Amino acid sequence: MSILGVGLLGGSLGLAARTVFPDCQIVGYGHRKTTLDRARELGAIDIGYDNPSDAVRDADLVILCTPVGRLASLLHEVANSLRPGALITDVGSTKRQVVTSARSALPDSVHFVGSHPIAGSEKRGVEHARADLFQNALCILTPAPDTHPQALANVEQFWRNIGMRTRQVSPEAHDRMLAFVSHLPHALMAALVSAQPDDALDIAGRGFLDATRIASGDGALWRDILLENADNLKLTFAAVREQLACIEQMLDAPEGTVRLEEWLNAAAERREALLQRKQRLAQGRQPPAQDR
Amino acid sequence: MSILGVGLLGGSLGLAARTVFPDCQIVGYGHRKTTLDRARELGAIDIGYDNPSDAVRDADLVILCTPVGRLASLLHEVANSLRPGALITDVGSTKRQVVTSARSALPDSVHFVGSHPIAGSEKRGVEHARADLFQNALCILTPAPDTHPQALANVEQFWRNIGMRTRQVSPEAHDRMLAFVSHLPHALMAALVSAQPDDALDIAGRGFLDATRIASGDGALWRDILLENADNLKLTFAAVREQLACIEQMLDAPEGTVRLEEWLNAAAERREALLQRKQRLAQGRQPPAQDR
Repeated sequence: MSILGVGLLGGSLGLAARTVFPDCQIVGYGHRKTTLDRARELGAIDIGYDNPSDAVRDADLVILCTPVGRLASLLHEVANSLRPGALITDVGSTKRQVVTSARSALPDSVHFVGSHPIAGSEKRGVEHARADLFQNALCILTPAPDTHPQALANVEQFWRNIGMRTRQVSPEAHDRMLAFVSHLPHALMAALVSAQPDDALDIAGRGFLDATRIASGDGALWRDILLENADNLKLTFAAVREQLACIEQMLDAPEGTVRLEEWLNAAAERREALLQRKQRLAQGRQPPAQDR
Repeated sequence: MSILGVGLLGGSLGLAARTVFPDCQIVGYGHRKTTLDRARELGAIDIGYDNPSDAVRDADLVILCTPVGRLASLLHEVANSLRPGALITDVGSTKRQVVTSARSALPDSVHFVGSHPIAGSEKRGVEHARADLFQNALCILTPAPDTHPQALANVEQFWRNIGMRTRQVSPEAHDRMLAFVSHLPHALMAALVSAQPDDALDIAGRGFLDATRIASGDGALWRDILLENADNLKLTFAAVREQLACIEQMLDAPEGTVRLEEWLNAAAERREALLQRKQRLAQGRQPPAQDR
């Protein structure tokens, strides 16, 4: 197999694949020699190339693990070097664009299936890679109407072998859901940090730091995610503005005291229920039917 | 000393005070007998009363540790039972209202000084109390023009003895700053949870859960905080709306790619600098001049 981009995700994928497929040769592509050396030292890859075409030549499975802004160009660069019958997938946080790019860039002799393993960290680089990063986490596969059914089944099986739960949704549904639950929180936390006057920020407590941890991600990476999903992101901003207007109404209304308490408790309970569900799933217990 | 309200904060205060003032009798007030029994078992108080007047009668220092919505009525209830010369303070998250309430409720023979130790947890109840909850954290004192200077000095010294750093700001400045750095994040995280479609929430990752942890607080407690600070909270909402509009402009502008990356990196760096500063302070190293 070939991993294009050996950062936190690509490196963790190499480590995880090695434990499950000990005989599989893992080839890596990175544009910096030091990164490739480090990935090899850590055991995340067997061989490293600084040219993506060289890295994919013998691979049955190619996994694109670069930031989403690099996926389209990478697909074009490797298109003519892929082995006939090769499976191509990716780990990008947005899916409509990569599915479209793959359709236009790749020959009919190979099969692309979009994937989004929901795992990661605000840390970057192969030195933070962990073999268990994907364990019990959810991988969303995003078949399009023209996705080859057997290719889809094979890619899905790969993620399950790595230890992930899987789910299939369309690229469009994926991008809408991720806008709400991932891209909006990132943008909103960056906005929360940016909105602080200096004197207020200076007295921030632990809660503020915890809440804004996701705003510590890499700007270039997130720029591309937000730009690719701009249409959905704007819909989520509208939803936040509605919520803020709703809070303002409760603050002003004579019956606001009761409604505000109910609204706050409902939000707290909704989060608590989610937390309980995730903790059960992380322990590998009682996965709901649709995740099996 | 007398602690009115023996929950997480009041209980932790009792435990902390006991280690610093082993000979001081700690009297507690709570409206439930089981809470008082539990506080006594844990060593947070020596004696418990279910009537606040009884709890303050012999105290040189009275600390109000109930939710902010209960502070005004509590001040009126204990006013005639306070010992002449007693020092009264509180631990509330909003300060303008309690300072005003104290001015109208208390006799001239006692002195009120507003305090806000910035420490806590989304957990509730004396069973989560910790003697080190206040250690190296910041306590903001909020003197008004009519606050007695020696009373202010004595209350400030009390918090320092407990292990806190201290700072003095006006009740007005306190409420404005806390609106930005604490009340806005709480409201915004509750809004973020509430804005999620069910299917999106279902695929939430760890980042979402971490970001929204502060939304797990008690609805009745936060209702009162948000209502008391509604004017400032609305100003912070306006600041968030401005940030969202700014992001939307960057998403649409031809030069948005560069600006969006810079904006995201600036937010990440601002948070990182805050984190470094807080970690130094938490370890008791290099406090900046104004915190000494």
